[in-house]
Amino acid sequence: MSSAWLLPEHIADVLPAQARAIEELRRELLDMARTYGCELVMPPMLEHLESLLSGTGHALDLKTFKLVDQLSGRSLGLRADTTPQVARIDAHLLNRAGVTRLCYCGPVLHTRPEGLNATREPLQFGIEIYGHAGLEADLEVQELALDAVHRAGLTDVALDLGDARIVRGVLAGQDLTPAAVSELVAALATKDGATLARLTASLPEAVRASLQALLTLYGGIEVLDRARSLLPKNALIDAALDDLQWLAKHLQQTHPDARLGFDLADLTGYAYYSGVRFALYAAGSSDAVLRGGRYDEVGAVFGRRRPAVGFSVDLKTLVALSPVSPLRAAVRAPWGEDATLRGAIRRLRENGETVVCMLPGHEHEGDEFDCDRELAQVVGQWVVRAL
Amino acid sequence: MSSAWLLPEHIADVLPAQARAIEELRRELLDMARTYGCELVMPPMLEHLESLLSGTGHALDLKTFKLVDQLSGRSLGLRADTTPQVARIDAHLLNRAGVTRLCYCGPVLHTRPEGLNATREPLQFGIEIYGHAGLEADLEVQELALDAVHRAGLTDVALDLGDARIVRGVLAGQDLTPAAVSELVAALATKDGATLARLTASLPEAVRASLQALLTLYGGIEVLDRARSLLPKNALIDAALDDLQWLAKHLQQTHPDARLGFDLADLTGYAYYSGVRFALYAAGSSDAVLRGGRYDEVGAVFGRRRPAVGFSVDLKTLVALSPVSPLRAAVRAPWGEDATLRGAIRRLRENGETVVCMLPGHEHEGDEFDCDRELAQVVGQWVVRAL
Repeated sequence: MSSAWLLPEHIADVLPAQARAIEELRRELLDMARTYGCELVMPPMLEHLESLLSGTGHALDLKTFKLVDQLSGRSLGLRADTTPQVARIDAHLLNRAGVTRLCYCGPVLHTRPEGLNATREPLQFGIEIYGHAGLEADLEVQELALDAVHRAGLTDVALDLGDARIVRGVLAGQDLTPAAVSELVAALATKDGATLARLTASLPEAVRASLQALLTLYGGIEVLDRARSLLPKNALIDAALDDLQWLAKHLQQTHPDARLGFDLADLTGYAYYSGVRFALYAAGSSDAVLRGGRYDEVGAVFGRRRPAVGFSVDLKTLVALSPVSPLRAAVRAPWGEDATLRGAIRRLRENGETVVCMLPGHEHEGDEFDCDRELAQVVGQWVVRAL
Repeated sequence: MSSAWLLPEHIADVLPAQARAIEELRRELLDMARTYGCELVMPPMLEHLESLLSGTGHALDLKTFKLVDQLSGRSLGLRADTTPQVARIDAHLLNRAGVTRLCYCGPVLHTRPEGLNATREPLQFGIEIYGHAGLEADLEVQELALDAVHRAGLTDVALDLGDARIVRGVLAGQDLTPAAVSELVAALATKDGATLARLTASLPEAVRASLQALLTLYGGIEVLDRARSLLPKNALIDAALDDLQWLAKHLQQTHPDARLGFDLADLTGYAYYSGVRFALYAAGSSDAVLRGGRYDEVGAVFGRRRPAVGFSVDLKTLVALSPVSPLRAAVRAPWGEDATLRGAIRRLRENGETVVCMLPGHEHEGDEFDCDRELAQVVGQWVVRAL
């Protein structure tokens, strides 16, 4: 991915080797999603701004490119995240009562990159399960997420778990503005105890102690026990800790290789999650490669408050972290008008072989495929032989 | 595809049945392109306006959504056609001397729909061959195009051929403004003899007669012979007629089912073609489903005047004309914590089976997959049995 000299910053062409790897992973993940019963949907790149951004918060608004529709004069947005669109499809178009599993894969565009080396055009793949409030749906989504990164060839993977209800439980009953909550969440995420102390100076001593305790509540499964002793008794917090324990037990059984970690203070990047949230980290990347969780509120703006849990991942990032897949072998063939030659080429292609025809005058050019065989005439017959 | 009530005009969600068909065709066509030695590239959705529109003409400019890059303050365009981007990649990034075959598949966006029922977000699939000026490349692209619509399940297909050099040959030496040429081309395309007569009143009698003759030069292969007798001797025209004859001969051999037609006057929608151009028509659609041709000039703005021939097609249109593919069968499974059940489900999925787990409380819901089997416990063993 280069050509920055011509293209806008953080926008790149994807050239053949990378494109092939992305396409192969794309198929692998869509096929995997199908085996779990996920149906594919393709929401549009462009929507009316108000339907694209309803109930999604300020961060997505800032990330969204805006333009004007010549046909209607209305403001349109280019999708910066597919999740709200899929929630709209579940709520309005499919409008089913029961469990619906959906998946999608397509580009999203960001006005600003999310990091120093981030693309502004991720290829977003994601899965959503609607209609089931129980933990079984969270578990299924987390298993799908772990399977996805395994299929991408990533072996050293850490699953980080948390729950939006814990901070909410600690702050329950406190009269805080949304801006103040945002500042608190940011200080918790960066483990900034000094700022946290300053921001919470006016809160009751017990709440301040719980928030400071949250700063220490990250690490292995033992974090859950420490949380039970350090945090106050509260229905939200208790439910969150029980749920995390249940999920950890099942994930350890089905994915014993995945390292489980917990961070009960971290809510960054999880603006719309309402319950358990999770992230996958791979060796070689400091940012999470995949994020997901429960966000039961997201359909509310479309008139249907359906339980919802899902994840999304950028396939460009995932492929950059994956081992390089080998070139597929190909057959080199001469160009000719001979019907038997043309028939032989056609049959090879119908069998899935790559046959690169050397067009007249180009017989001595190299090519970008790994041609390990050639189609040659031997005693009047066209045969494939090693090169 | 519905939900127009919420989405902008000519923009639609693609729901599961249609999305599955589009995804299957997408894979089929990319695999077919690979068997011909085409390498996949993925140009970005967004580019600087001047690189996106360089040398592409007014029509593409009007079709292109524009917006401003917050990072640079520069004007960006959303691609309305992938062809110029792929030419840029060939010219600048790959920069090879020999034959390069490229393919792509991704969304493009149009400010206005191209027809009453057209989408403003086609999913454009295309193929380009660079570096070979000979007819063998035109033939390969036309065979790829015919294979593409056959793979989409379209059986009754007409291939319409023409050549940009014929009108150019007839008008050679006449001093006409680009605007006047555009008007002439429009009148020729609509076979509007009266307008043509008015527009050409000041041209020499021989030219006027040739233009009126062009209005009649459409039909079967006999058109080429009629053209030889009706049109003036001219190197451009002779080369075009010889090339069309050669291509027709080869196409009749390799694709005897395709009905060949010729329209020597029609240049609509072929703004940048410089030689042979073609279109495929399917039963059930009055518009061409696929267009392609030779456009040796398109790389010139990027500093490399490479021979180029290719085609593009909207997969949404193609799927709408295709026979409906059947749902894939699936296995219904209960939800449970039993490790043997979970293992049985995992193995089925690893073998590519779709296994829909009935989440607790949802056992009696219907589902959208064609579940023809179930996973059931029989004498302590989990077995798949017919439903």
